Amino acid sequence: MTALRLALAQVNSVVGDLAGNAEVVLRRTAEAAAAGAHVVAFPEMMLTGYPVEDLVLRGAFRAASRIAVEKLAGDLASAGLGGIAVIVGFVDDDGLPRDASAFLLDGAVVARYYKHHLPNYGVFDERRYFAPGTSLTVVRHRGVDIALTVCEDVWQEGGPFTVAGAAEVGLVVNVNASPYERNKDDVRLQLLQRRAAEAGAPILYVNTVGGQDELVFDGDSMVVAADGAVLMRAPQFLEGLYYLDLACAEPPAEPPQVLGEALGVRRVSTATPAPEPWDLVAGEVADRIPDEEEVWDALVVGLRDYVQKNGFRTVVLGMSGGIDSAVVAAVAADAIGGDNVHGVSMPSAYSSEHSQSDAADLARRLGAHYRTVPIGPMVDAFMAPLALTGLAAENVQARIRGTTLMALSNAEGHLVLATGNKSELAVGYSTIYGDAVGGFAPIKDVPKSFVWALARWRNDVAEARGETLPIPPNSITKPPSAELSPGQLDSDSLPDYELLDEILHRYVDLDRGTAEIVDEGFDADLVQRVARMVDAAEWKRRQYPPGTKISFKAFGRDRRLPITNRWRETG
Amino acid sequence: MTALRLALAQVNSVVGDLAGNAEVVLRRTAEAAAAGAHVVAFPEMMLTGYPVEDLVLRGAFRAASRIAVEKLAGDLASAGLGGIAVIVGFVDDDGLPRDASAFLLDGAVVARYYKHHLPNYGVFDERRYFAPGTSLTVVRHRGVDIALTVCEDVWQEGGPFTVAGAAEVGLVVNVNASPYERNKDDVRLQLLQRRAAEAGAPILYVNTVGGQDELVFDGDSMVVAADGAVLMRAPQFLEGLYYLDLACAEPPAEPPQVLGEALGVRRVSTATPAPEPWDLVAGEVADRIPDEEEVWDALVVGLRDYVQKNGFRTVVLGMSGGIDSAVVAAVAADAIGGDNVHGVSMPSAYSSEHSQSDAADLARRLGAHYRTVPIGPMVDAFMAPLALTGLAAENVQARIRGTTLMALSNAEGHLVLATGNKSELAVGYSTIYGDAVGGFAPIKDVPKSFVWALARWRNDVAEARGETLPIPPNSITKPPSAELSPGQLDSDSLPDYELLDEILHRYVDLDRGTAEIVDEGFDADLVQRVARMVDAAEWKRRQYPPGTKISFKAFGRDRRLPITNRWRETG
Repeated sequence: MTALRLALAQVNSVVGDLAGNAEVVLRRTAEAAAAGAHVVAFPEMMLTGYPVEDLVLRGAFRAASRIAVEKLAGDLASAGLGGIAVIVGFVDDDGLPRDASAFLLDGAVVARYYKHHLPNYGVFDERRYFAPGTSLTVVRHRGVDIALTVCEDVWQEGGPFTVAGAAEVGLVVNVNASPYERNKDDVRLQLLQRRAAEAGAPILYVNTVGGQDELVFDGDSMVVAADGAVLMRAPQFLEGLYYLDLACAEPPAEPPQVLGEALGVRRVSTATPAPEPWDLVAGEVADRIPDEEEVWDALVVGLRDYVQKNGFRTVVLGMSGGIDSAVVAAVAADAIGGDNVHGVSMPSAYSSEHSQSDAADLARRLGAHYRTVPIGPMVDAFMAPLALTGLAAENVQARIRGTTLMALSNAEGHLVLATGNKSELAVGYSTIYGDAVGGFAPIKDVPKSFVWALARWRNDVAEARGETLPIPPNSITKPPSAELSPGQLDSDSLPDYELLDEILHRYVDLDRGTAEIVDEGFDADLVQRVARMVDAAEWKRRQYPPGTKISFKAFGRDRRLPITNRWRETG
Repeated sequence: MTALRLALAQVNSVVGDLAGNAEVVLRRTAEAAAAGAHVVAFPEMMLTGYPVEDLVLRGAFRAASRIAVEKLAGDLASAGLGGIAVIVGFVDDDGLPRDASAFLLDGAVVARYYKHHLPNYGVFDERRYFAPGTSLTVVRHRGVDIALTVCEDVWQEGGPFTVAGAAEVGLVVNVNASPYERNKDDVRLQLLQRRAAEAGAPILYVNTVGGQDELVFDGDSMVVAADGAVLMRAPQFLEGLYYLDLACAEPPAEPPQVLGEALGVRRVSTATPAPEPWDLVAGEVADRIPDEEEVWDALVVGLRDYVQKNGFRTVVLGMSGGIDSAVVAAVAADAIGGDNVHGVSMPSAYSSEHSQSDAADLARRLGAHYRTVPIGPMVDAFMAPLALTGLAAENVQARIRGTTLMALSNAEGHLVLATGNKSELAVGYSTIYGDAVGGFAPIKDVPKSFVWALARWRNDVAEARGETLPIPPNSITKPPSAELSPGQLDSDSLPDYELLDEILHRYVDLDRGTAEIVDEGFDADLVQRVARMVDAAEWKRRQYPPGTKISFKAFGRDRRLPITNRWRETG
């Protein structure tokens, strides 16, 4: 056995910022070298950010990425970091665009690997962009044969990991940009255990952290042994360098023939000696965190990065006194500080007393800015010439509020946050150009019933820490209402949210037919009604702002349905 | 040689309306049978509509499509149409989802073919949905070996057409849902000529017509001989049955061995005799139409079908007196009739006299409904409490207009049309939630310079026909202005539109880098400025309504760029 000190760089990158991302690699490599690491691994597409989408189609961008990785190798050496092996993801182009991992040493790119399995489902469109690699790269470095793989390779049976097993490697390094989803950490671990068994070698799995438009990456980097043991595991959502001293099998005397597999093997040697033995330090395994904490962290990081990476410092949102705006404001306060949150109460004739007092209470609890803009005069100005009634009169109030928030954004430079949740978005219970305005919608993928759960969890955390509860208890307990007409309650037009969310989960997230859902014991009329509402709201969703994906299937790039669509589920 | 009378059913289908689409097949098959056709071919995914997007992921939908094609075969036979061969596209599922073509005869599905080449670029995501077929289906029917292929198969070198050549077939039938793009008809013809040469046999190419969200299909169905001769060609955008009497080579005495090709061959025989000889009628070749007419027809059909397939009867739009709203209104009048178009003039303090007189003139010319809603009182109601200046004051006017149109839509049931053009959308010269509101944006893919060309062309057509010019000449000749501040002109903040459109075409449609564009002789500062504007407007485009794609690369599903994006072209 030969031991290596491995560093897992669970770091954040910014799409398109090649120079800034290379700077992160330099800084973290210096840190890893100072800690005595022999190998440091950075995430998939570290240099370019992920996903870069159609930027890949631009020749100028691909060329810049190729130049950036060569320059990085040189800059590492110039900084005296040539001796530590750096594995880093980037976009390569060898005549075809590639999702690539590079092995940098002594000022040079000594090996490259091209991702073999290209995901083309869910939020992924990688067959739109990349050609799949057809060989596994194995680098003999410091006495260990290290196989390079990328992300999706770990999600598929067979392929690179089987080949790594046949090649008798001592370690597989898998670099990732694997977006967060609820419970995905459990799935990941099981997959890694299966692949490590296939490879007959430990897997170093390193994932990025941070938000990019609709996606948030949770890290959860780890090393799993061939027998499935978790040797180290980093916390989710926390940027940092994480280490493991790992004893790896030595290379076979003769490289085994690998025949009849989907990929060939390309072998490279760095001709470096194995390190001198030292007292290995055991790896740390971070505790798993509760579901609510995981989601809360995802929302905080997703919003924080959208704000910061797009050059904003402050956000503005309507504070209605209700649970949705309270949770969005609390997430924002955790993300960028309460002092950077601007709340606006916009009461109308139908607003309850508590809508204003709860909103003011929320702002006080968060240390947020707060102002009141009564919309009565604007409503009157519209009602007189247009003689509006019913839905038109309800919607105009919401749109005046949207226009007010956008005016404050234009005047003061805040990012506007939309406060809609997934249940509302699903059934179309929102006003387009009204409460739907915003640059970002932090809880758009959170079902209403889970919005309450998050609020309770966040207050419990505050209570346990002896801090002010961020969310007014009254906003959690009162019945939800849009307050667009006298005495209006959500329950007037929607089923109970717990029940609604059960049906929506099946129809939207799991793509089940209505007949299947009814067979599970749900009321047939209700299931039909919900399905119709979901189908009819597609056009509104298409114009909704992006927001952080936390579920298996989020509205947005993850779920692509036609607007013009006469398909109606029956049964 | 054996002659067959072929019918090309260049027809419209509706996504998800399996029963309605089957009805179209029944009706058109009766018509083709009455005209003595031996074979009638319907487009790709005729039964389901195209594209059905994530509906394919639902098991209930795939099952319904499979049942629909079997039922259609039975219904044809029950209607006395069992004797005519019907080739029709649908979604099949043989354990994997397939983009399929079926050959129906005598009440049964006698053969199926699964699309081999699955496009996964531009607007297409077919690898997200389908598994590729691995064999070519050849049906011996009425003494001719007919190979079945689907759409993209014709766009790729090798594959089904090479195999059809090796199999010595007498005819290849290629069913399509091929979206319109400017000049695509020329490309199509060249492709078909190449494939016909590869196959050594004529190709029957049938394409759908009609609009589906962002896409419009132009038909352009044709039959091309092995030597490249165009034997018949249907007009673009016109629904109908088009015929050709075609003499086809007889099958070889022994089926040739097809070895070493990408696909195997599956042979089926219907055991039907060749028709008795008759005097063959020569096919008709429709004249090519000018670029402006082609685009105008695309916009008219795209809008008409969005309106009708979504159950609307009327549209409403802001009439500003400018060229964009004039062209949108004229397109709408051609699509659904002037009497179903509702124009609203919404003057502010900065509106010129001619903005109202030109708008009223437009409505009169089109026979559209027209009303004036001055926005002064609404503007005052916002300005007082919010103390708006500059951009915030400009935008609030546009948003009041958007809210007004949405209120009329809510009250009266009209579809709101957004009037922005591609140039504005590219550089972000529009107000989100203001002039950007709408369910559909008919000219969002038309560059401003071409908007003028369309207006001139449409007026010329009217003049030639001795009709009222639909577009006020003054709207064509006056300098463009948003009229959101005193004396404002587009040219204050944007370069000349002809020049702007030249740069945008290269940067957006062709994905060229700024350095390449500068090398073509454009001013470096201007190119940089335009590229920055395009990059910064991504978030607004994401929330823009859908509109008809007419270019090689339209904003929307066709161009997928991150919002959070620090990549800046240099050079």
